[in-house]
Amino acid sequence: MKRRLLVIGIGAGDPDHLTVQAIKAMNRAQVFFIPEKGAEKDGLARIRREICEQFIENDTYRLVPFAMPVRRAAGDSYGAAVDDWHAAMAGIYGRLLAHELDEDRVGAFLVWGDPMLYDSTLRILDRLKSQGGLDLAVEVVPGITAIQALVARHGIPLNAIGEPVLVTTGRQLRDGFPRDADSAVVMLDNGETLRAVAEDCDIWWGANLGLPEEMLVSGRLRDVVDRIEANRKETREKQGWVMDTYLLRRRK
Amino acid sequence: MKRRLLVIGIGAGDPDHLTVQAIKAMNRAQVFFIPEKGAEKDGLARIRREICEQFIENDTYRLVPFAMPVRRAAGDSYGAAVDDWHAAMAGIYGRLLAHELDEDRVGAFLVWGDPMLYDSTLRILDRLKSQGGLDLAVEVVPGITAIQALVARHGIPLNAIGEPVLVTTGRQLRDGFPRDADSAVVMLDNGETLRAVAEDCDIWWGANLGLPEEMLVSGRLRDVVDRIEANRKETREKQGWVMDTYLLRRRK
Repeated sequence: MKRRLLVIGIGAGDPDHLTVQAIKAMNRAQVFFIPEKGAEKDGLARIRREICEQFIENDTYRLVPFAMPVRRAAGDSYGAAVDDWHAAMAGIYGRLLAHELDEDRVGAFLVWGDPMLYDSTLRILDRLKSQGGLDLAVEVVPGITAIQALVARHGIPLNAIGEPVLVTTGRQLRDGFPRDADSAVVMLDNGETLRAVAEDCDIWWGANLGLPEEMLVSGRLRDVVDRIEANRKETREKQGWVMDTYLLRRRK
Repeated sequence: MKRRLLVIGIGAGDPDHLTVQAIKAMNRAQVFFIPEKGAEKDGLARIRREICEQFIENDTYRLVPFAMPVRRAAGDSYGAAVDDWHAAMAGIYGRLLAHELDEDRVGAFLVWGDPMLYDSTLRILDRLKSQGGLDLAVEVVPGITAIQALVARHGIPLNAIGEPVLVTTGRQLRDGFPRDADSAVVMLDNGETLRAVAEDCDIWWGANLGLPEEMLVSGRLRDVVDRIEANRKETREKQGWVMDTYLLRRRK
């Protein structure tokens, strides 16, 4: 017997980001696995719980919280650190599924944004499948990413006319502005990148997109970088964490 | 008095891609502007109409179809051809809004995918606003893109671990594989690109994503390119148009 697993994108924070497909998927699941990453991420676990309460029409589902191990600092090898963490997570998922999900049941992971982008759930499940032991059928439901919420709130297109856009991370951007594209949209920035961008750019920045605490800043990077960093710092101090993303467009 | 305009992403074809936010927005609009691009695109106008019927809970809304001019062949200057077309479209939108949308009403454009990506609606409305004359308030609602539908159906992440992804067009890819990224996701391909890719890649391809006629192919590019081209040709002949997208990942 197969265990069925739904990996469901729930959007960038606003419960209204949920798609009809995601809501239907949630109503097919009996068990929801809720990651808990420590005190600073309690807010995120809470939003997942609220989304379940708001959109699931039966009362037979069950929430199974589980602790996420902290990924060790990358040090010299980002790849090795991630690999170790995926191995640990595959063990945790394997035990969770074996103990908490009966063979004829449907389980679900609710993923911030879209499971396709800078999220490890699919990779961890792939690793678990490749280890054998559990027979898993995985189905993916896309969700609105922070990138989409960002540009929608700024009311702008992501790409310049007919031009490419690089989707990248703060870590990558610190190695230099892209050569292939004049537009770069950046996720997973730890806040150390913007001041290091040497290029003359316009920026559209947002934090806590879709949440009541949403903040938006746009302008020429050199003119607004102080304001962005101040907003970022204030948010982190107030709520314990900050999720931000931004689009940079080279000025010509 | 302002005219309010909602630019609403409706996803990649499957009506279940609609978000709660999009459905709420549709229920706020009284007038829907439905582009008609000629016989081959009738299917797309039909899906827009069906989405209105399925999700709007009042019967006081009105559909206003309008003809889209054909963009002239780009010739030497892609930019100039697009610019001429945007100018023509701004004129059409201006007349449409002045005649069909009263000043205190809410109008809506339903955009395939997400208005942020390779769509001209926001640019045309910006041009119209900059011409003055009409006082417009534009609100954008994001939608699931074909990119998201593609990778969800293939069950894979878009990015390699921590790595960037270039979002690009067939036209751009014909100038060479990206230097900044080992992953490229391609939209707006006219079918002349894949055979010209010299790089040794894996490909995840999809057409008519989320529709009953959906087709998926994946594998090493050189092994599956014939199958993809045959599928593409067959679909175009059968339904008169084909919308496809694909992810390429350089093999290492």
